[in-house]
Amino acid sequence: MQPDSSARKEDAEAIRAALDEWAAVLGADGVSNAPDVLGRYSRTTQAEAPSPGCVVWPTTTEQVQSVAQIASAHGIILYPISRGKNWGYGDACATTDGAAIVDLSRMNRILEVNTELAYCVIEPGVSQKELYDYLQENESGLWMDASAAGPDSSLVGNTVDRGFGHTRYGDHFLTCCGMEVVLADGRVVRTGFGHYPNARATHVYRYGVGPFLDGIFCQSNLGIVTRIGLWLLPEPESFEFFYFQAPNEDDLATLVDRLRPLRIAGTLQTAIHIGNDFRVLAGSGRYPWEEAGHQAPLPPDTRMNLRRSKGLQAWQGSGSISGAKGEVRAAKKLLRQALRGVATVRFLNDWKLELAERCVFTLNKVGLAKVLGRKLRVLRPNYELLKGIPTPEPLISPQWRLRTPPEGGPCDPLDAGCGLYWISPVMPMLGSETAALRKLAEPIFAEYGFDMIVSFILISERSLVAIFNVSFDQSEDGEPERASQCYDALVNAMHEAGFYIYRAGLQGMEKLRTGDPEYWEVLGDIKRALDPEDLIARGRYIPPLDEG
Amino acid sequence: MQPDSSARKEDAEAIRAALDEWAAVLGADGVSNAPDVLGRYSRTTQAEAPSPGCVVWPTTTEQVQSVAQIASAHGIILYPISRGKNWGYGDACATTDGAAIVDLSRMNRILEVNTELAYCVIEPGVSQKELYDYLQENESGLWMDASAAGPDSSLVGNTVDRGFGHTRYGDHFLTCCGMEVVLADGRVVRTGFGHYPNARATHVYRYGVGPFLDGIFCQSNLGIVTRIGLWLLPEPESFEFFYFQAPNEDDLATLVDRLRPLRIAGTLQTAIHIGNDFRVLAGSGRYPWEEAGHQAPLPPDTRMNLRRSKGLQAWQGSGSISGAKGEVRAAKKLLRQALRGVATVRFLNDWKLELAERCVFTLNKVGLAKVLGRKLRVLRPNYELLKGIPTPEPLISPQWRLRTPPEGGPCDPLDAGCGLYWISPVMPMLGSETAALRKLAEPIFAEYGFDMIVSFILISERSLVAIFNVSFDQSEDGEPERASQCYDALVNAMHEAGFYIYRAGLQGMEKLRTGDPEYWEVLGDIKRALDPEDLIARGRYIPPLDEG
Repeated sequence: MQPDSSARKEDAEAIRAALDEWAAVLGADGVSNAPDVLGRYSRTTQAEAPSPGCVVWPTTTEQVQSVAQIASAHGIILYPISRGKNWGYGDACATTDGAAIVDLSRMNRILEVNTELAYCVIEPGVSQKELYDYLQENESGLWMDASAAGPDSSLVGNTVDRGFGHTRYGDHFLTCCGMEVVLADGRVVRTGFGHYPNARATHVYRYGVGPFLDGIFCQSNLGIVTRIGLWLLPEPESFEFFYFQAPNEDDLATLVDRLRPLRIAGTLQTAIHIGNDFRVLAGSGRYPWEEAGHQAPLPPDTRMNLRRSKGLQAWQGSGSISGAKGEVRAAKKLLRQALRGVATVRFLNDWKLELAERCVFTLNKVGLAKVLGRKLRVLRPNYELLKGIPTPEPLISPQWRLRTPPEGGPCDPLDAGCGLYWISPVMPMLGSETAALRKLAEPIFAEYGFDMIVSFILISERSLVAIFNVSFDQSEDGEPERASQCYDALVNAMHEAGFYIYRAGLQGMEKLRTGDPEYWEVLGDIKRALDPEDLIARGRYIPPLDEG
Repeated sequence: MQPDSSARKEDAEAIRAALDEWAAVLGADGVSNAPDVLGRYSRTTQAEAPSPGCVVWPTTTEQVQSVAQIASAHGIILYPISRGKNWGYGDACATTDGAAIVDLSRMNRILEVNTELAYCVIEPGVSQKELYDYLQENESGLWMDASAAGPDSSLVGNTVDRGFGHTRYGDHFLTCCGMEVVLADGRVVRTGFGHYPNARATHVYRYGVGPFLDGIFCQSNLGIVTRIGLWLLPEPESFEFFYFQAPNEDDLATLVDRLRPLRIAGTLQTAIHIGNDFRVLAGSGRYPWEEAGHQAPLPPDTRMNLRRSKGLQAWQGSGSISGAKGEVRAAKKLLRQALRGVATVRFLNDWKLELAERCVFTLNKVGLAKVLGRKLRVLRPNYELLKGIPTPEPLISPQWRLRTPPEGGPCDPLDAGCGLYWISPVMPMLGSETAALRKLAEPIFAEYGFDMIVSFILISERSLVAIFNVSFDQSEDGEPERASQCYDALVNAMHEAGFYIYRAGLQGMEKLRTGDPEYWEVLGDIKRALDPEDLIARGRYIPPLDEG
């Protein structure tokens, strides 16, 4: 996809011409091709990334329409991002060199919050923190769902990439109701009932009447989403976080099989995360280079010592139950019963947490607080995510392999020089599936010298997604290349075994293009209908048209 | 859309040529243009319907591919139906004259039932009764969700028309996972992960990776759905049907506002139906022509007498709660509290129902069973639907206005000569919305001489759908025309007020085409991409291309 030099020159001229026109619409501070800006938008947590030709910052839907029309006139590829925090799946980077990044972060209005019907209408630039703060400050009585991408990440971006969070509304696409989308030629599509200006049900009933279009604007490149309705959760009367541990690697299969009936029955309604020891270690600290004698992956002895000293086991699970008190009581009992003999379920609520933290303070004075304090530090971020509070802590995990990690806690993974590939295959919610996947992945991680950081997440009533990190140090010679090879080997092996990833970064896109060729042709047909010049995010999920 | 006579002749020749080719593929008994057959497929519950040119009955996906390819070669419009029981929304009728009906009723294989993961994979010809019987006979321990369209109606057809049933899985589109679709040129698209032949998660994870296409194949004409995965419900430990009544017309608003928090919180997970007195009367008997002095609509006095004598009130609501015993106990308490002061909630379960029916038998001997027996007869079909049992009883309601109803109970509405339009506007789940809609609809029903049969259904966590019947007698002079005018007046008034219908029959399709013109253009662009000659179900939800 690298253009030759004469083509590159043409592209540069087209960009220059378009920049003038874009500046006329967006204002001088709405566009840039300054080298430092372009540099910022070509940074990545992965091995390599394309460099953009320029960046534009529209502030309204009308401006996005103009941006698209001008791009069309000059044949410039646009790459829309909401806030550019798509960590481990491509960050803020385009899929091709020379694209104009359409950064929607200045479109950050919260257009509506309806407390009776528990929904909001937001623009792509609204960060998790912004919505959270708004709901708190206005005493809305509503919770949002937050992904683990940190307070600064976009809710629209995550929804449109079909990401998920941790509450009952963790499937963001499923809680998205009424989209506004700008097409390549500048036309605006409003989905559901939204294309009827007087419709009452636009943000409460997803389908509208006739074909339901929202799905084709997720994980795709058919339009630029400029607004969505998003459902919120009324604060429940009672909230109980739960966690459990299991000592043996093989216990995972049993845990999954025991939890499945409760998930299918709807007793457990949130995602349940079951992470291995590495997942917790990476989530709360850095690679123990000293203890490991500067070796990687972690030697088994060091791993076992760490497990013991940190109170970890092979697997740690967490989730939450919420509702009225009686409902929560009933569900807790069922959960305890389900895991009896495999794991002991412990519950934590606001009252207990406050008490425990007060104890830590007191115990600290007598030097006995270490164990409890550590446990609380580890659990707190999960606890908060299950209440829809966007926390920065998950952003510490990409720092796992850094030789010289930054001072302080979580920060922008790009600033810290983190390397990260997510690999997220989906499987039926069966213990046997988890065993097969682990058996497949473990030797590949070992072969490439990485630790298998993994969570298995009961993401819907019948499916599991496994989230693997290939975490690496961008500044360590040869490690990015090895990480990239490890990613390739893992994804190839998983796909061959029928475990397909639910989401891809740039390097994963081409790996998706197997199976029935008709399927990819049909996606191309739809792309050609809505964006005949293939100008929006070329190659993102839908294959480039010139390859078709 | 009526072709002139020379065009009609050309069409007839094309059909004849295609019929020969279709017969070669499907066998002689797989095609027909016999007048009695064509007559059967042009019957309707509405005022008028197009007549087909022929009918074909493919039995496999490969045959559907051939049917499409041959149609394409001859420029023949195809109208696919699953089992043709789309009562009140177009029945088995095409949207244009002269179409080839593709009747998929012979594709009725249940391809898979997975009891661990609680799903099945079925073809369009599988009726509700067939799946129900299969699940019972094989002691699967699984419940299905059933719509009120009767035992013979298709599960795939209802799902693809985005219909709904009564259990927690009542939103059929939401429980559909992995479609197989034949396009106009014969290509086969498998959605979700299904286009990867070795994918493990095809029927447990809906989205796959990349754009999620299922939505565009519902309420549309972009392809012929030949197979779907459908999620099933494990039989719960405890099931409680609930019902309540409220005496005043205005109580509806209060009921809705009281129930909303429980629906948004997920305490109540099934659709809750709140029907007026006419809904129950029509569901259990025929219009009281004698008592009404052969007048219609029903005089207020007669209506009130009937209400009293049948133990009805202005509104009757029903739904169910299921789960483990403790969960059900907790939810029952919350529901009772929510409706305190408005309505008394009564609960019924298998044990109570059996007891009550035994009592009827005993009481009968002493002549005291009438009241209880009538109540049970009225409640039983709702009770069964809430357990996913497909019952024929709802098919009695279209008989409401017949002057000479058929002997016996429910039957095929077409055989009985029933006239029926459904009108199903969607609104936010707010009492004030129901009041506004009732105020709008009541005078129009009165103006055209029909009784306002209506249910308000809490269909999702935030939305209500109102289902109005315009029930009429096909054989009564002038009544079909008046019904058609009443339908027009109602839908026009509702749309003008922002209450858009969620589903349309032939007569409603054109009424949808208002609002943003871009939206309809975009649908046309997608149609053109997948079916450039506009051969599948021309004009069904997506406007005809030649009008674009």
